[in-house]
Amino acid sequence: MNNYSSAVRVGVVGATGFAGQELIGLLARHPQVRLETAMSSSADSAARPLPRLNRIWDGQVEALDTRRLANDLDLAFLAVPEKAAAELAPGLVEKGVRVIDLSGAFRIRDSAARSHWYPATGQLPAGAAYGLTEHYRDDVRTAALIANPGCYPTAALLSLMPLSRAGLLDASAGVVVDAKSGISGAGRVPSDRTHFSENHGSVAAYGVLGHRHVAEMEQELGASVTFVPHLVPLDRGILETIYVRTAPGTTAERLADAFEAAYGAEPFVRLTGDALPEIKHVAWTNFCDIGWRFEPSSRRLVIVSVIDNLVKGAAGQALQNFNVACGFDERVALL
Amino acid sequence: MNNYSSAVRVGVVGATGFAGQELIGLLARHPQVRLETAMSSSADSAARPLPRLNRIWDGQVEALDTRRLANDLDLAFLAVPEKAAAELAPGLVEKGVRVIDLSGAFRIRDSAARSHWYPATGQLPAGAAYGLTEHYRDDVRTAALIANPGCYPTAALLSLMPLSRAGLLDASAGVVVDAKSGISGAGRVPSDRTHFSENHGSVAAYGVLGHRHVAEMEQELGASVTFVPHLVPLDRGILETIYVRTAPGTTAERLADAFEAAYGAEPFVRLTGDALPEIKHVAWTNFCDIGWRFEPSSRRLVIVSVIDNLVKGAAGQALQNFNVACGFDERVALL
Amino acid sequence: MNNYSSAVRVGVVGATGFAGQELIGLLARHPQVRLETAMSSSADSAARPLPRLNRIWDGQVEALDTRRLANDLDLAFLAVPEKAAAELAPGLVEKGVRVIDLSGAFRIRDSAARSHWYPATGQLPAGAAYGLTEHYRDDVRTAALIANPGCYPTAALLSLMPLSRAGLLDASAGVVVDAKSGISGAGRVPSDRTHFSENHGSVAAYGVLGHRHVAEMEQELGASVTFVPHLVPLDRGILETIYVRTAPGTTAERLADAFEAAYGAEPFVRLTGDALPEIKHVAWTNFCDIGWRFEPSSRRLVIVSVIDNLVKGAAGQALQNFNVACGFDERVALL
Amino acid sequence: MNNYSSAVRVGVVGATGFAGQELIGLLARHPQVRLETAMSSSADSAARPLPRLNRIWDGQVEALDTRRLANDLDLAFLAVPEKAAAELAPGLVEKGVRVIDLSGAFRIRDSAARSHWYPATGQLPAGAAYGLTEHYRDDVRTAALIANPGCYPTAALLSLMPLSRAGLLDASAGVVVDAKSGISGAGRVPSDRTHFSENHGSVAAYGVLGHRHVAEMEQELGASVTFVPHLVPLDRGILETIYVRTAPGTTAERLADAFEAAYGAEPFVRLTGDALPEIKHVAWTNFCDIGWRFEPSSRRLVIVSVIDNLVKGAAGQALQNFNVACGFDERVALL
Repeated sequence: MNNYSSAVRVGVVGATGFAGQELIGLLARHPQVRLETAMSSSADSAARPLPRLNRIWDGQVEALDTRRLANDLDLAFLAVPEKAAAELAPGLVEKGVRVIDLSGAFRIRDSAARSHWYPATGQLPAGAAYGLTEHYRDDVRTAALIANPGCYPTAALLSLMPLSRAGLLDASAGVVVDAKSGISGAGRVPSDRTHFSENHGSVAAYGVLGHRHVAEMEQELGASVTFVPHLVPLDRGILETIYVRTAPGTTAERLADAFEAAYGAEPFVRLTGDALPEIKHVAWTNFCDIGWRFEPSSRRLVIVSVIDNLVKGAAGQALQNFNVACGFDERVALL
Repeated sequence: MNNYSSAVRVGVVGATGFAGQELIGLLARHPQVRLETAMSSSADSAARPLPRLNRIWDGQVEALDTRRLANDLDLAFLAVPEKAAAELAPGLVEKGVRVIDLSGAFRIRDSAARSHWYPATGQLPAGAAYGLTEHYRDDVRTAALIANPGCYPTAALLSLMPLSRAGLLDASAGVVVDAKSGISGAGRVPSDRTHFSENHGSVAAYGVLGHRHVAEMEQELGASVTFVPHLVPLDRGILETIYVRTAPGTTAERLADAFEAAYGAEPFVRLTGDALPEIKHVAWTNFCDIGWRFEPSSRRLVIVSVIDNLVKGAAGQALQNFNVACGFDERVALL
Repeated sequence: MNNYSSAVRVGVVGATGFAGQELIGLLARHPQVRLETAMSSSADSAARPLPRLNRIWDGQVEALDTRRLANDLDLAFLAVPEKAAAELAPGLVEKGVRVIDLSGAFRIRDSAARSHWYPATGQLPAGAAYGLTEHYRDDVRTAALIANPGCYPTAALLSLMPLSRAGLLDASAGVVVDAKSGISGAGRVPSDRTHFSENHGSVAAYGVLGHRHVAEMEQELGASVTFVPHLVPLDRGILETIYVRTAPGTTAERLADAFEAAYGAEPFVRLTGDALPEIKHVAWTNFCDIGWRFEPSSRRLVIVSVIDNLVKGAAGQALQNFNVACGFDERVALL
Repeated sequence: MNNYSSAVRVGVVGATGFAGQELIGLLARHPQVRLETAMSSSADSAARPLPRLNRIWDGQVEALDTRRLANDLDLAFLAVPEKAAAELAPGLVEKGVRVIDLSGAFRIRDSAARSHWYPATGQLPAGAAYGLTEHYRDDVRTAALIANPGCYPTAALLSLMPLSRAGLLDASAGVVVDAKSGISGAGRVPSDRTHFSENHGSVAAYGVLGHRHVAEMEQELGASVTFVPHLVPLDRGILETIYVRTAPGTTAERLADAFEAAYGAEPFVRLTGDALPEIKHVAWTNFCDIGWRFEPSSRRLVIVSVIDNLVKGAAGQALQNFNVACGFDERVALL
């Protein structure tokens, strides 16, 4: 952990994407941050007005300038595609700039899985932390490079890791993660898929059995995951319905205890028990709400987990990691 | 099967609910129908204007009048809660009026399941047909009382029955049905649950492991079903994502053959193969679209099935059953 | 008026746009139509699947083939941008193919206004009818070229023309038309403007004082119109709120009489009086619903008019014009 | 202005309504506030869980207890219907508790207008300030009773008052305010009007020429206002399109100067010039964004103004007034 006596000098690369904009809004509220620069790799995007941030952040998005990043910053947030992140991050770290990367470039450790799902990202640099804050806080504190988790894995892993670690899952039965995501998860670039008329009044499954976030889930759980994401007609938020079979002997009490032990003291995970959470409860916040229903006779457990994909699933968790990495109160600018 | 030389005299009870209104709109387009009456059991509702039906149907909703139903109709559509349906239907049938019931009153045959899920409905009258048209057409043709299936079971059973009957499902693994439904499925009565602000920008699971439609699914499949419905922020439509394990030896070809054998000649089931269907493709229509993805190595099969809950899931299927029951072309007023 | 003893051979150019698809769906239900071809000017678009039309229309979208249009059709619907329409239509008409054009190419008669708002469309061919069916039915019956009105002018002119013609408007006060439109009005091509996330939870004004549909409104009304369209977060439908001052001496009764005289016998205009219409009442239909509130003391009149922009505002009105032009019952395939 | 050496003791009455909940969320972030109590006048509502506020505010909503309000608070926020507010406020003020009232009870000064629009509220107590912060800051600083403006008047008056005061409006021409509001503006109580299915995919005008917010607008502007609010299918936010004729001699520069003079130094009003604002830019914030288009030749001016109805239109403006009234930085807990 570094200690910063004065404001931390940070930069955001990928400032005009949805996650980048969200990050700027959060950083602007952080009293110990000096936002030195917000850059975009495309000149087109850099020229884009950001009307929502007016009066919140007075800067201008600039064209990407690697040298300035290396020279002027203590820490850089990368909110760019994984290929760009893989090219930028190692050089910055080498110059002593810490990096919190929001892409998938540095999340997967197994090299076969890496080259299958993220072929453009090369070798994983040593010392990268997987930034699922609640479970890897110690790694995050000291890492030079922090891989911010994917939005879908964040909701799934926060739900399942306490149970997996407590031995309450019957891994042989497999895990089904059925995710419903707002359209902002598909990114800012216009396409048929993100057209309003394609999504209004509709729901669509995509990436069935082939979405790369499954690699992150399986890496952390050590279990086979069947993952189907869907686009639902809303902007921000993810709800995941998770179907598992519990290990023999699991009781309702042991389940509740495992969740409580993991999150009772966590500021950003709220356990709702059998009052199931809804996206509306967490939109525009850094909370992950988790509820569940358990039928002991059949050992069927259904968990429902919700986050805002742009906050806890991206920019908010990145800032939470930033707070941990810099030794600040984890809640600053997030509550 | 009855043959009707002139127009069939029909009535709708429950005319001001969502399904009832939909039914009136469809019946008004049917050349062989004379809509004798549309009734509502509540005086309040009967006085409600139905601006969408203006110029399509010129009648007035009337107060419930059981005697008129018994005397003036060849066939009655009941779109009322199951208790009211259970009280009305037997008397009508006795007077020679055929009944197509859209409630859950007459769907469940097993008496233990009936008294658990539909305690207010008493004994199942003899001769009731389960009106999943594509699979029970012969029953529908001659039945005096037709139980129109529930919206969720319609999408699930059309997806699973061909596989179940072809022996392609590994029943021991259980079936997971994750359903996403528009809010019209929750009915017309205002409540916190149907308030716009509770649903806009949100998704909510409900009835987890305890929704009564599971009884209908398990009855027809003879397998254990884990069913979780969700409300998504749209008005009309259901998408179900169905997770099953196939029986050993199942191939992609056998799967496709089973679907094709069941639906190749059906006017209202469209197989989309691996181009997964979306709610938008079927909203305001009587189609059920079914697509799937299969991974032979793991025997994992994911099926995606979509319907309009008010059409194929309610009024449209009721009219399809009406056409079958009266010997008309099944597509009249539905294409 | 032509009389067609057998099916009319028609074609649709611009088949993959929103209006084109809607038109194909309607034509497929028309018993006196033979849809010879559906073409797209872009090879890309022609290859696009149209899953909603599956089983409704069995054809394939083809690349544009002007010669086939000229040789094989009785009538062509053009649902392409105005430049393409201006190039295609005269040649077809010359070969004896009637044309119903959904673009703005042939709506404006004044040549100064034409060259200002539609510079790419050249001279207006003689004999073009302005296809606002209810007010130009006689022209439509015999015209070789029918200019289908714009969506916004349809709702505005149906509201205002009866009053204007009855001398009930105080033209000196100007007319304000504040329009709220679903996003499908912005077309199928993806852009920042049509991205789901830009529109969900939002409303945006555009084209303030500079939208070209104002030319159509002013042409028909002979009055100055202040027109501001807005995008609202829904897919289909337009609601226009129209603010006018009535001429001195106007009474509530004279207003109602003027509307009733114009539309009492019209199948597709429904007068709702002071029960104001909503988009929901007309979505997916060819109706235009018109309601109003009048304050005699101040001579303020507020009219609310709603249509489905893809039906009455485009494909439906085109088919209505087709029915008139071919001597069919105007309601065929539209009710 | 009072000066508070320690935390200000505040209470919220009407805690479970939309505005009340929003207020609690904002107050919980305010470092100089001690939220002593949140009350609801209905026992039913008091028992309602507020899952969104979990971990943000640890309290429990209590039943209304007037004595505690009078004894334990420095300042009370009333977010209850005007009748309840009119009964509560005078007694609190008498006991030295300052009141910020979010209802319409204390906004209208003219007694004829008061008894017409707010008949249940009796006489206006002396010394009530109209809390449109940017224009009545001095009044707010010292008032014992602050009437927080209505949501619609907030957006309209912030747009028009600078022009009215600068003599740039031609009042003889009248002002048209066409407002589009999210459904949260209709309140939390379920009804046909707030049902999801009535609003999804729809737009509806209501209160045409008869909405009581018009009284507030006319009071502050001294001009006749034609006001038509509409419900649009979103949750939070208002966009108003305002049509005025400018006074002779008005230039684009003088318009811009008038706006700039009024708001150049204001933290919560952002002028966007001819880049028109959208609801999306201000949702979940306390900003009012104002843009405009002017045609000097016709003297037509169209202004577009957006706010979040629950923040700048209710709870946020209330907190802004609180900050002014207590001598805090106006932006605390709002940026």
